[in-house]
Amino acid sequence: MLKKCLENVRKNSPLIHNITNYVTVNDCANILLACGASPIMADDINEVEEITSICNGLNINIGTLNSRTINSMHKAGWMANRLSHAVLLDPVGVGASELRTRTAVELVKNIKFDVIRGNISEIKTLANGSGSTRGVDADIRDSITEENLTEYVKFAKQLSKNMDAIIAISGVIDIVADSKDAYVIYNGHKIMSKITGSGCMLSAFTTAYLAANKDNKLMATVAAFCAMGVAGEIAQKRMSELDGNASFRNYLIDAIYNMTGEQLEAMAKYEKR
Amino acid sequence: MLKKCLENVRKNSPLIHNITNYVTVNDCANILLACGASPIMADDINEVEEITSICNGLNINIGTLNSRTINSMHKAGWMANRLSHAVLLDPVGVGASELRTRTAVELVKNIKFDVIRGNISEIKTLANGSGSTRGVDADIRDSITEENLTEYVKFAKQLSKNMDAIIAISGVIDIVADSKDAYVIYNGHKIMSKITGSGCMLSAFTTAYLAANKDNKLMATVAAFCAMGVAGEIAQKRMSELDGNASFRNYLIDAIYNMTGEQLEAMAKYEKR
Amino acid sequence: MLKKCLENVRKNSPLIHNITNYVTVNDCANILLACGASPIMADDINEVEEITSICNGLNINIGTLNSRTINSMHKAGWMANRLSHAVLLDPVGVGASELRTRTAVELVKNIKFDVIRGNISEIKTLANGSGSTRGVDADIRDSITEENLTEYVKFAKQLSKNMDAIIAISGVIDIVADSKDAYVIYNGHKIMSKITGSGCMLSAFTTAYLAANKDNKLMATVAAFCAMGVAGEIAQKRMSELDGNASFRNYLIDAIYNMTGEQLEAMAKYEKR
Repeated sequence: MLKKCLENVRKNSPLIHNITNYVTVNDCANILLACGASPIMADDINEVEEITSICNGLNINIGTLNSRTINSMHKAGWMANRLSHAVLLDPVGVGASELRTRTAVELVKNIKFDVIRGNISEIKTLANGSGSTRGVDADIRDSITEENLTEYVKFAKQLSKNMDAIIAISGVIDIVADSKDAYVIYNGHKIMSKITGSGCMLSAFTTAYLAANKDNKLMATVAAFCAMGVAGEIAQKRMSELDGNASFRNYLIDAIYNMTGEQLEAMAKYEKR
Repeated sequence: MLKKCLENVRKNSPLIHNITNYVTVNDCANILLACGASPIMADDINEVEEITSICNGLNINIGTLNSRTINSMHKAGWMANRLSHAVLLDPVGVGASELRTRTAVELVKNIKFDVIRGNISEIKTLANGSGSTRGVDADIRDSITEENLTEYVKFAKQLSKNMDAIIAISGVIDIVADSKDAYVIYNGHKIMSKITGSGCMLSAFTTAYLAANKDNKLMATVAAFCAMGVAGEIAQKRMSELDGNASFRNYLIDAIYNMTGEQLEAMAKYEKR
Repeated sequence: MLKKCLENVRKNSPLIHNITNYVTVNDCANILLACGASPIMADDINEVEEITSICNGLNINIGTLNSRTINSMHKAGWMANRLSHAVLLDPVGVGASELRTRTAVELVKNIKFDVIRGNISEIKTLANGSGSTRGVDADIRDSITEENLTEYVKFAKQLSKNMDAIIAISGVIDIVADSKDAYVIYNGHKIMSKITGSGCMLSAFTTAYLAANKDNKLMATVAAFCAMGVAGEIAQKRMSELDGNASFRNYLIDAIYNMTGEQLEAMAKYEKR
């Protein structure tokens, strides 16, 4: 199943429209190319509908939000919905400012997202419609652990029902849930939090998986999360003594570039909850 | 001749003003530094004329076009023309939206470009003043092959005449043409299409070659295209089993950094048509 | 002392708000993560005060200045001052345009900066309130050498007094001075000028050191400058024959990631003047 999802991305080569932040945009483009998809970035209000029209999926990321692009997000999302394209929201740093919280809440209200992907602090803030986060990183007190996993799985399913979207929470332990089923994913390595853009890349990457696997979006999301975690493990193992986070970033994208369906199936660690 | 072009870039160290997209801007800056030039990025309407004045060349790239910077492109282009600076247009994704097509067409109308560089789909769209492209990549149906090469060479020469600019088309086979002469370049490797920014980097890089070789802009463009293709070949050969597109990107810039005139002459594969 | 400064960054993990250019923003984020700090980038007028409030330091960089963000810089700076957060100004390319000069001068007038960091041409332009620079690089005629060092040390101390900020000048020889004391730093390697962002990264990095060492900002700045120079030396030594500026950039960030306090103490070359 995971293998099939990965191979569909390479076979269909979906074109993904990204309205995303300028910090990690280059990494998002390269990871999309690495997995066999194609990226296009466009955020001007006068072209986002057209750009979305020629694409297969839309990735909205509020990482460096500015007033100029909020309307572009709404317009692109509306068009993507109209055309039944895959649409994902990455509410980066929601809760860090009122602007981010309000923008994320309004996007969720007006656009039907297939997937909402964030760290646990972002997802909790979005669930409450308010709250505070420590910048763009998850609050350590929110961490998903073996102890609170059952509780968080329940939370994710309920939120999925409320928001009518797959909830995809990344962290040391990931949870991907719709209103009925949840998958818990154990892949990855802690060094992934030491590069900028691991979350943003995962969002762009997941959008490609969604666009290429429209008949099973839940498993497409699970496959994307497993693949990114596996890539993190491969990249970390490749590190030499002098390597740090910059080399790790390159190895991570390289690992996605070289990943086979067989490798993904063999290394994926996930379970249904 | 190619050797001389390369060495002139290192000797003159031209300062290149880039109004370019935020996706690949870092790569553009690093490749300019790699070849011996210096980059400056500036897009605000209140400073572009001054910035262009202190530079030796101007690279306009519409990759993440926004309404705020279109006027900046016109102003900077106008000043560069007035000062007889080298000016290049990269009409990224023209045809993907009406905004991009209109902007590119108006830029070509109002500014005298030394070189217009794009993939074949972009160049064809620009030639027609309308059309559609699949995002930022060339349409496979447009590909330049040995079979249609003669026809495309004729097209490029005619377009050069119509647009009063060197037409530089990059792809598996590249064509660089003015109204009288055309050069066909066979360097490069297909993995270059698997990183973001190979086109944008080529545009910035070509602008540096133009600025440092103002007495022969056609051969400067040919030299830049050969050098980038050669760098792609060197970078690809350097790849180990675990390397992917991220490492390739680094190796590509590294290869430009280390390239000598002798190496370029020895590896360049081009012919006059 | 340097060791302590480095370790305080890892221990306190300061969150740094960056209003910075889109050319090198990814490198700034990754170097902050490499040293143990956390980055957040936000430049919209409607959120900068809130973002600054949750952070420990503010890094303002005018590298790709635009009219939209100038007010954001003022608002964020004002809030950072009110909260006594560490604040640094990087006047990139000041003198290259009237907009940059005016903006830098007004920022210095309205905001109390802990540190102003630039190359010698930028600092001299800022000192005069006018002048011209060759883009974003230092003018060779301005270079700090053994011959003019005494004179420049005096200049830096006097400017620090006038501007009520630590003056941090980077180049082949660095000077870090307050009104009374100056330190001269001899670390680094000339290849650092062959990557984009070595200055921007140093500014972001120094802000993290300031935020984590608020009781001794002068030595925090000296430590950050030594650490970056040492990282440059380590990265350069690591280069193989095929490596160029792209690999160097990765090695530089990697070296910051792996740097220990002991290594920094052993390799730092600085003296009080």
